[in-house]
Amino acid sequence: MTLFTGLSAFPLTPIDDSGKLKPELLQRFLERIVSAGVDSIGLLGSTGGYAYLTVEERERTLRAAVESVAGRTPLIVGIGALTTDVAEELARDAQKAGADGLLLAPMSYQPLTEEEVFRHFESVAAAGGLPLCIYNNPGTTKFTFSLNLIARLAKLPNVTAVKMPLPADGDYAGEMQRLRAMTPEGFVIGYSGDWGAKDSLLAGGTCWYSVIAGLLPEPALALTRAVRTGNATEAERIDMTFAPLWALFREFGSFRVMFAIAETLGFATFTPPRPILALQPADRERVETALRPLMQFTG
Amino acid sequence: MTLFTGLSAFPLTPIDDSGKLKPELLQRFLERIVSAGVDSIGLLGSTGGYAYLTVEERERTLRAAVESVAGRTPLIVGIGALTTDVAEELARDAQKAGADGLLLAPMSYQPLTEEEVFRHFESVAAAGGLPLCIYNNPGTTKFTFSLNLIARLAKLPNVTAVKMPLPADGDYAGEMQRLRAMTPEGFVIGYSGDWGAKDSLLAGGTCWYSVIAGLLPEPALALTRAVRTGNATEAERIDMTFAPLWALFREFGSFRVMFAIAETLGFATFTPPRPILALQPADRERVETALRPLMQFTG
Repeated sequence: MTLFTGLSAFPLTPIDDSGKLKPELLQRFLERIVSAGVDSIGLLGSTGGYAYLTVEERERTLRAAVESVAGRTPLIVGIGALTTDVAEELARDAQKAGADGLLLAPMSYQPLTEEEVFRHFESVAAAGGLPLCIYNNPGTTKFTFSLNLIARLAKLPNVTAVKMPLPADGDYAGEMQRLRAMTPEGFVIGYSGDWGAKDSLLAGGTCWYSVIAGLLPEPALALTRAVRTGNATEAERIDMTFAPLWALFREFGSFRVMFAIAETLGFATFTPPRPILALQPADRERVETALRPLMQFTG
Repeated sequence: MTLFTGLSAFPLTPIDDSGKLKPELLQRFLERIVSAGVDSIGLLGSTGGYAYLTVEERERTLRAAVESVAGRTPLIVGIGALTTDVAEELARDAQKAGADGLLLAPMSYQPLTEEEVFRHFESVAAAGGLPLCIYNNPGTTKFTFSLNLIARLAKLPNVTAVKMPLPADGDYAGEMQRLRAMTPEGFVIGYSGDWGAKDSLLAGGTCWYSVIAGLLPEPALALTRAVRTGNATEAERIDMTFAPLWALFREFGSFRVMFAIAETLGFATFTPPRPILALQPADRERVETALRPLMQFTG
């Protein structure tokens, strides 16, 4: 299978109070993901809190991950930054450190034009020299890609995939059909937004960029495999088991909920980077309840 | 006059290709502003590109500015950051370096809740110990303040002012009336968005946080003084003289246009931080044309 295909698991990045990586805890997260057998790791994605870390800590995190994974599972690393200079530096470093692929989100402060985003991707993809996935996540980057821009970017060297947000109208098949008609053969289209994973996979999405697989890879794999083997009924059943968790993801944002899941699963407590707040105790209990039915899938 | 009152001028931060401050050019910008007689300097605001600079470069810029201004004009400094830790560090540093006030924008990646923004401001205002202005700029931070949240924040120690974006319905007087009723006596309400400056000042706004005053303080002062002395006709006339420039600010964003103005005024060429692109030559000519009538105001 090629990169940017199947189930990609997005781990949290465990950081202590002084902003330093906790490498042992990262290793434990990665071990769970690797031994479950996912198709790739999405290190330092939005779930990995890349936007809140210094360049130095991001580079340290990547090196710890490469050492820990050691070629067992392909490693995709998020290199988004507010400036092209920093994103280029991160891309070059990722290549040097031994990452397999890059994930680039157009973070913004001043709202960006299409031409600015195009040039940004062109420069960073050239600097990295690794397969690069367009990280289309308007909820965090505040930039909305047109299909035309994705088609332009898909022709650039190294730009081989896009990670799409869930379509507002729920028409995955229509969106993918339009995108496939506009992009080169072999350009890979996948989706993020865990509550739409089942539908996007059933509609033919090539990759599920999954938040929950960062901590619970087994049930996410079970869902992915049910679709792959054509068992839509089983996929529906697993997705229903996830439903209470998806509701919490939508209510609080999956980033906040993931810290509560880590705590519930017995990992050392660590909290989101301020200003992001941890869930209140009553809401953490709701997370615990939502997790219980999913434990049937864990080994 | 108290801080956060009158005309506040927002200079660009001149940075070279390797991301380092050009201190002599900053000094020239500041000298123009100070000798024109504006009421304060808004260093490292959105126009100062704070979001694109490292913490080290921001601290270096502040020190160069303090040295250059040396108590002649009050210095307000932008300390916005994606994490509370970094904003606190910048606030402490600003106090130590000798700034007079702080400007705090709730930069965001994960969309923030009201409670998160409240706690963020509470922590950073306490860390800084200087008068702090709430930087309400949804176009860049992607966070929209409710009037209720501003009212809560206005009760915090050190939080003494708000910099509002132009109201969508143009009802400055109504918005200020509602805000004044909800905030403590002496809490200062001002506006940014240069094309609404005349209307906001005429409606009783206490401060114009001005982009253009960063490079052309004289005409901005002329407009501010016309309103202050009750000469609405003269204010209208000056605002009309600005109109072609306001149109370009709205078309391209004032940040991009300011780099073209600096070049037109004969300052050494320096370009916006990538991914932001400089204006095309044809658009730079439009800027030159828009500036010409404003030269009647410069000394």
